[in-house]
Amino acid sequence: MKIRYAPIAMLVVLALAGARPSAADEGMWTFDNPPLKQLKDKYNFTPTTQWLDHIRLSSVRFNDGGSGSFVSPNGLVITNHHVAFGQLQKVSTPQKDYVKEGFYAKTQAEEIKCPDLELNVLVSIENVTARVQGSVKAGMTEKQALDARKGEQAKIQKESLDKTGFRSDVISLYEGGEYWLYRYKKYTEVRLVFAPEQQTAFFGGDPDNFTFPRYDLDFALLRVYENGRPVQSKEYLKWNTKGAADGDLVFVSGHPGSTERGLTRAQLETDRDVMYPVRIGRYKRELQALRAYSGRGPEQARQAADEIFGLENTVKALTGEFNGMDKALFDKKTREEADLRAKVAANPEWQREYAGAWDAIAAATKKQIELFKPQQFRSISTASNLASLARQIVVYVAEIRKPDAERLNGYHDSQLEELKFYLFSPAPVYPEFEEALLTFSLQDSLDQLGPNDPWIKTVLDGRTPTQVASEVMKGTKLKDAAVRKALVEGGETAVSTSTDPLVVLARKVDPFFRDIRKQYDKSVYPDATFTLRLAYGTVQGYPMNGTKAPSKTTFYGLYDRSAGFDNKAPFNLMPRLAQRRDKIDLSTPLDFVMTADIIGGNSGSPVINRNGEFVGIIFDGNIESLTGNFVYIEETNRAVAVHSAAINEALRKVYDAPALANELEGK
Amino acid sequence: MKIRYAPIAMLVVLALAGARPSAADEGMWTFDNPPLKQLKDKYNFTPTTQWLDHIRLSSVRFNDGGSGSFVSPNGLVITNHHVAFGQLQKVSTPQKDYVKEGFYAKTQAEEIKCPDLELNVLVSIENVTARVQGSVKAGMTEKQALDARKGEQAKIQKESLDKTGFRSDVISLYEGGEYWLYRYKKYTEVRLVFAPEQQTAFFGGDPDNFTFPRYDLDFALLRVYENGRPVQSKEYLKWNTKGAADGDLVFVSGHPGSTERGLTRAQLETDRDVMYPVRIGRYKRELQALRAYSGRGPEQARQAADEIFGLENTVKALTGEFNGMDKALFDKKTREEADLRAKVAANPEWQREYAGAWDAIAAATKKQIELFKPQQFRSISTASNLASLARQIVVYVAEIRKPDAERLNGYHDSQLEELKFYLFSPAPVYPEFEEALLTFSLQDSLDQLGPNDPWIKTVLDGRTPTQVASEVMKGTKLKDAAVRKALVEGGETAVSTSTDPLVVLARKVDPFFRDIRKQYDKSVYPDATFTLRLAYGTVQGYPMNGTKAPSKTTFYGLYDRSAGFDNKAPFNLMPRLAQRRDKIDLSTPLDFVMTADIIGGNSGSPVINRNGEFVGIIFDGNIESLTGNFVYIEETNRAVAVHSAAINEALRKVYDAPALANELEGK
Repeated sequence: MKIRYAPIAMLVVLALAGARPSAADEGMWTFDNPPLKQLKDKYNFTPTTQWLDHIRLSSVRFNDGGSGSFVSPNGLVITNHHVAFGQLQKVSTPQKDYVKEGFYAKTQAEEIKCPDLELNVLVSIENVTARVQGSVKAGMTEKQALDARKGEQAKIQKESLDKTGFRSDVISLYEGGEYWLYRYKKYTEVRLVFAPEQQTAFFGGDPDNFTFPRYDLDFALLRVYENGRPVQSKEYLKWNTKGAADGDLVFVSGHPGSTERGLTRAQLETDRDVMYPVRIGRYKRELQALRAYSGRGPEQARQAADEIFGLENTVKALTGEFNGMDKALFDKKTREEADLRAKVAANPEWQREYAGAWDAIAAATKKQIELFKPQQFRSISTASNLASLARQIVVYVAEIRKPDAERLNGYHDSQLEELKFYLFSPAPVYPEFEEALLTFSLQDSLDQLGPNDPWIKTVLDGRTPTQVASEVMKGTKLKDAAVRKALVEGGETAVSTSTDPLVVLARKVDPFFRDIRKQYDKSVYPDATFTLRLAYGTVQGYPMNGTKAPSKTTFYGLYDRSAGFDNKAPFNLMPRLAQRRDKIDLSTPLDFVMTADIIGGNSGSPVINRNGEFVGIIFDGNIESLTGNFVYIEETNRAVAVHSAAINEALRKVYDAPALANELEGK
Repeated sequence: MKIRYAPIAMLVVLALAGARPSAADEGMWTFDNPPLKQLKDKYNFTPTTQWLDHIRLSSVRFNDGGSGSFVSPNGLVITNHHVAFGQLQKVSTPQKDYVKEGFYAKTQAEEIKCPDLELNVLVSIENVTARVQGSVKAGMTEKQALDARKGEQAKIQKESLDKTGFRSDVISLYEGGEYWLYRYKKYTEVRLVFAPEQQTAFFGGDPDNFTFPRYDLDFALLRVYENGRPVQSKEYLKWNTKGAADGDLVFVSGHPGSTERGLTRAQLETDRDVMYPVRIGRYKRELQALRAYSGRGPEQARQAADEIFGLENTVKALTGEFNGMDKALFDKKTREEADLRAKVAANPEWQREYAGAWDAIAAATKKQIELFKPQQFRSISTASNLASLARQIVVYVAEIRKPDAERLNGYHDSQLEELKFYLFSPAPVYPEFEEALLTFSLQDSLDQLGPNDPWIKTVLDGRTPTQVASEVMKGTKLKDAAVRKALVEGGETAVSTSTDPLVVLARKVDPFFRDIRKQYDKSVYPDATFTLRLAYGTVQGYPMNGTKAPSKTTFYGLYDRSAGFDNKAPFNLMPRLAQRRDKIDLSTPLDFVMTADIIGGNSGSPVINRNGEFVGIIFDGNIESLTGNFVYIEETNRAVAVHSAAINEALRKVYDAPALANELEGK
């Protein structure tokens, strides 16, 4: 829920459009507006429409948060192990832990269905700015205008869905300066084909996360089905086993989330002084609670693994970003803002439209600071997934009674199918785990808000967090997907009369949620969405810690780093890797880096060469790239990828999966 | 020529003696005062006198700047390749470049004599503070007191030399707070036995210098002779092929130069604002000149290799130190100084003696800033070694006419033998190289001082630097050691009547030198000397660039780093290493790090375990240790060493030198 302002964002775009040095490999470009000039000037490369369409149609969005691509004509999709992690965990059992042990379906019959994974392929893009903006009539208040635009967006989505059958999302770019209709082909029948052991995918663990040199085989393979048969994926990336070499031009096609590069200096200060410390503190406490749960036994450790992985990742990213908010960054922002204000002052039209923007932002930021803690801590669903499902059910049945245009985003007609896919997911729910998470989050809210906070009083009602969580999680039937389905189908009546203690709790907190939401909506626009972008850059090392980081690592380095730590976790080799050492060509490139501009959400994005071939898969950024949230610095900002040759080498020499390697290589 | 102040330094020692946390592995301890309490408390280890004597008598000082140790009973000494570099270059020829190709004497007959290498073993230490201080009589001015102390030191040295035959140096500790007589057994007959190729010793070159993880085989072996036969070195370090493991307690016995940890905040500011920028600028320009010379051809490149290596090292070290002089360092200094002043204020005796110290330092620092540029640039001998020899000859013949006590340090009777060893060195001199160096240094002096500087006017006398250098270097006969000897033996008459153009030039600048020296002597004490110290610590990794550095690397890492850079210089593998890859056990530890507190001069120091055995050889500090010049930070400060196992593996599997490996292992 970050605050963004259309006027400033558009202005920055206008003002800097000519000023940006086109020499830097900066930018996450939409496919309708690729950086043709930059590519021509710097790389003498001009992608054809066909080239761009092919890349776009081969790219896949993982709706649980990541990217991927088709890599065979038989529906084979590659993504990161850490993107597939959630599904691997959901199909695992106390007896068979595919996260830890890895997974390989030798035949199609052995492929396992993912319980709640939706993949999207972007099939068309259409500019609908005029229609959305046209819904705003003269004389409307700001709130009325916002509602009008939201209503129009919902209408466009519904119309498109009805007409084409494609998932249809209207997204705003430039913080609401433009609106685009993105249509997706949607796949929900996805099966797991291959995953290495997590330790091999994530060798080096949390310490090595967001760093380079790196030695990870962070990939997994899935197959997309339709009607029980693998899809014939005409558009897929041809596999290039040689991969990319030092100095090569490469592209990254994936789904970056949002950055904070457009924020004003004052907003960044709020980030640094208010938001980041609170968020980092919260996540660290939650991590502590998760580790405590994990320590109860191996099965609990298995249940908590994905959450711990995700939170460690978040804490390391936020900490890196926080450390990047240093004097140099603020000095840069100050200079840029002074420039921008001077440009506004010098241009009468801009002066009229934007001169008041800084004050407006300052006022809104003040409001945001006030709302921040309640918004963070007046919630039962930030830790427990089951509580989150309960909350969504309560909201769902209320929202669908409203006209489509007036509903909260996420509950429009065009979005219901996807929502239900998650609400009714057959993935296992672990009551003990959910209880631990709810206990933690209630206790944490109590600690942060104090016992006299009205939300706390309502939720605890004289009991302790432990008592409430125990009562609610022991009594609820919501872990059964059929129960959730019955509630949703029973509508507001079923939900309002339900005595399920988790539903009761979810109902109690609903007014608080709606109140905060209303206050936010008065002043903010929705954040950017997670849509397909194209980045480009060069395979290239960088200055690091007094010396140079190379552009790639090899299998030699994996064995070196493991031996350097005496094979102790998280630098331990899986037995397969240790045993197959002499079979592996140790000089095979393992991971590599490039200047391409990426951010969270790009995980699993294919790295593509000039010929449109797959040469690697993005899985991380280096530690220096964490400040990329605020500013892109080409000298040190690097995206980190697994090299295509490493994947072939591993499939053939480590995992005895030549059939898969052959499928990738088109043999 | 750094300025140090006895009162403050002693005070810091007094005031902090109790305050320093004994938990940190800080300190370069003299052998008469080892850190017994710290070792007992933290490591439960108490070295016996015998243990300490054994380490001391096995340790060797390389008088051209480095450390080493005896590692066999037959006079075999190990040091760094980069310490032996100068001698390797001096015995090389245009036809045979041992620096580039490496060197191995399969038999003793093949061992090559070093032309001008003196090694020292510290045989006794005696406190002579009372005698030196006793030479100062009531009523003496500060200058008279200084002269009295210097005279007494010279007298003690001469007496000791005459009595024992040992090289005898009186050194000052705690910036003149204490005086000690160090007696050395001296060896000047030293032969080269083994050196790897420089590229293997210094793999990663300047980029990797002062960094870790590292993959260098930076060692060389020499043999000490007396009267044409290898010495029977009873005291030598037993070789432990297994080396040190993560977490082991280890010791480093060697000859650190000086640090600037005792400087006041004001002095550090002067360092940062005046000295460092000037020095770094100068060295960078000199490096440019050397590289230009090196570019003239392969033979010129060979001649300049050692100088370039040394200057690159200096520039990287100074730059790292300069970058370390950040806000955190100055904040720390400010706090420490406030503490110290408070302690002085609270103690009447200290108040009397030290209250004026800060003002005195501030005044002296001002003087130092004035003298700094003349002292740096009014010199013909900062680049050209031959000009330096000429300068020393001119000074020599003047000094020896004075009573011993009144001479400049370095020209006392007890020091003449060593001095002549260098003045009459048979090492080759390359006139073209010397001319290029003198041209550079004269031009640089002109650029820095301007054409109206009296020194410049005297030296150039209307000509260009190129003209002067050409005339002088083409005309001089000093490259012949016999000519230098004849001049020295001819005394002041021979020197003052010489028409050798380099001698003429050296005479011309002598008054300037003596003037600066006189002004310095009014206010400063001699800097600390390069004497044997004991450091200790733990083999241990550290936090680095967002992750952890391991405590060791292996041969795997060498191949990884080379492959990561596509085997391009300075990451190229020598053919032997590439060819022998499959013979080498790649998991053999290569380099490792420890918390021991070291500084320049420690190069080549043995790393020793509790049992007094050799487990490795220091060759560098990590980039984080460069701020160790100002402050020791245990969390990240690391000494970098070659592992003993790597040396054995290389000797046996790469260099086919099993006899040497056997000698080391005592087989």
